[in-house]
Amino acid sequence: MAAFTPADAAFEPRVRESFAKQTVMATIGAALARVAPGEIDIELPNRPALAQQHGFLHAGILATILDSACGYAAFTLMPPDAAVLSVEFKINLLAPADGERFVARGRVVRAGRNISVCQADAFALLPDGEKHVATMVGTMMCVRDRAELRG
Amino acid sequence: MAAFTPADAAFEPRVRESFAKQTVMATIGAALARVAPGEIDIELPNRPALAQQHGFLHAGILATILDSACGYAAFTLMPPDAAVLSVEFKINLLAPADGERFVARGRVVRAGRNISVCQADAFALLPDGEKHVATMVGTMMCVRDRAELRG
Amino acid sequence: MAAFTPADAAFEPRVRESFAKQTVMATIGAALARVAPGEIDIELPNRPALAQQHGFLHAGILATILDSACGYAAFTLMPPDAAVLSVEFKINLLAPADGERFVARGRVVRAGRNISVCQADAFALLPDGEKHVATMVGTMMCVRDRAELRG
Amino acid sequence: MAAFTPADAAFEPRVRESFAKQTVMATIGAALARVAPGEIDIELPNRPALAQQHGFLHAGILATILDSACGYAAFTLMPPDAAVLSVEFKINLLAPADGERFVARGRVVRAGRNISVCQADAFALLPDGEKHVATMVGTMMCVRDRAELRG
Repeated sequence: MAAFTPADAAFEPRVRESFAKQTVMATIGAALARVAPGEIDIELPNRPALAQQHGFLHAGILATILDSACGYAAFTLMPPDAAVLSVEFKINLLAPADGERFVARGRVVRAGRNISVCQADAFALLPDGEKHVATMVGTMMCVRDRAELRG
Repeated sequence: MAAFTPADAAFEPRVRESFAKQTVMATIGAALARVAPGEIDIELPNRPALAQQHGFLHAGILATILDSACGYAAFTLMPPDAAVLSVEFKINLLAPADGERFVARGRVVRAGRNISVCQADAFALLPDGEKHVATMVGTMMCVRDRAELRG
Repeated sequence: MAAFTPADAAFEPRVRESFAKQTVMATIGAALARVAPGEIDIELPNRPALAQQHGFLHAGILATILDSACGYAAFTLMPPDAAVLSVEFKINLLAPADGERFVARGRVVRAGRNISVCQADAFALLPDGEKHVATMVGTMMCVRDRAELRG
Repeated sequence: MAAFTPADAAFEPRVRESFAKQTVMATIGAALARVAPGEIDIELPNRPALAQQHGFLHAGILATILDSACGYAAFTLMPPDAAVLSVEFKINLLAPADGERFVARGRVVRAGRNISVCQADAFALLPDGEKHVATMVGTMMCVRDRAELRG
């Protein structure tokens, strides 16, 4: 995997400030665990209020943390005045999402001027190790010229 | 689009009972609005607690209601003893998800014995009409032989 | 579905000229059957040289005509000096692709300044009607400023 | 990445025999370069007859070799009497596909009894190294009970 040099040395506070505005993260209880150039980890303690019909974490909640992991991984490499928007993403569910804690790890596959492609994987953190529960590939857009989008 | 004949005449209470077990739906405030053979509508009032960094509904929350719309659309056509699981889905974001209310409309494109393909669209319900904000295509699996999966 | 007004009244010859440069279309025997604002049909007679291991049309060849149907559907709505590139696409295979002839029907779902989202469906044309064999949703980019991309 | 133990020790001749039936591979000039448990490499020399409108390799031809790389990666781990079919795949295009030679490298992410998830990457082989031109994630199905599907 490529090593990335961020255009903005202050990428970490910029990412953390933007993440803090994602109210949905507080609602589901997700936290930004790691910020590095082109890489983001988001952690989510499991809770009964986020389940699908069999008691597993709902795939849409996995998609929520994976999408933000992709978006902020791309955002680490963008210039200070840019905003990031998701164009599309796909998620494959690999195993039932049970366990006490999940982590979504996103990374940039290709950083473009306008379009970045990112990949993210979700793992259930179990007593005996990690279980790979989902994988995502998504397209993220760098938006520069729209005043209504901040951060 | 094909018209579907459900294998189980009591598909509607079966869908409603399973949907009621999806605790995440109550958490985000989503409700099952319509159940028909091969078709599901899920409604979601917008709320500040579900936002991404610009104040729009987070794409993962759109994915949550679209995924359930796809899954339950497939579930309407499954036999009474089956469970439904998402194999994968992809979502394309078409426009910023703002507005007071959203609806996710899912429908079966192809119903197979083991695998069904579904499509779902999300609309923001605005004073002057509907705005198409996202489209999903997903693969849903019919699971018959696993006792731990109910409904 | 929305009706589209092309930015360039001469969209049809522009599409046909570009399609004629896609040498792969002649190689597989595909032809541009219909060009309308935001809509493209591409036809492909089946031939033994395009098969996968069971004798069905290879999914990648379906993807080839579906991707071009998406790309040119978007291209009908672009300005005269633009080029179109595929950002990503996903295809779901719905039924075995057998039959003497296939058609890929693409249409624009959302036309944006830089990014368009398109959908395309492939049908096998059988004596007793059409069989829906695949569905695609893809993201197409409008490129204006790169001299090396023509048409 | 997990190491896989094939259910069928004779997986390699089984894969090579099935690949040889994919007539489209001879048509486009692709060859099976490497067969290992859960991993497949397919090589494709570039040729003018496979181009899109700007002279790059058409995305659908990239999809063709990536899909077969995914399918046969899954097939290496299947029992001798099984057939493999593609359920769906998504491809993200990362860079223009030019160069004299391409390789598609597929690998199994999760091997299930019925459903396997695979990833594949395509690289242009250039004088100064490899250029990553596309990435795919796909779902492959193991089919056991259909006599009309062989290999």
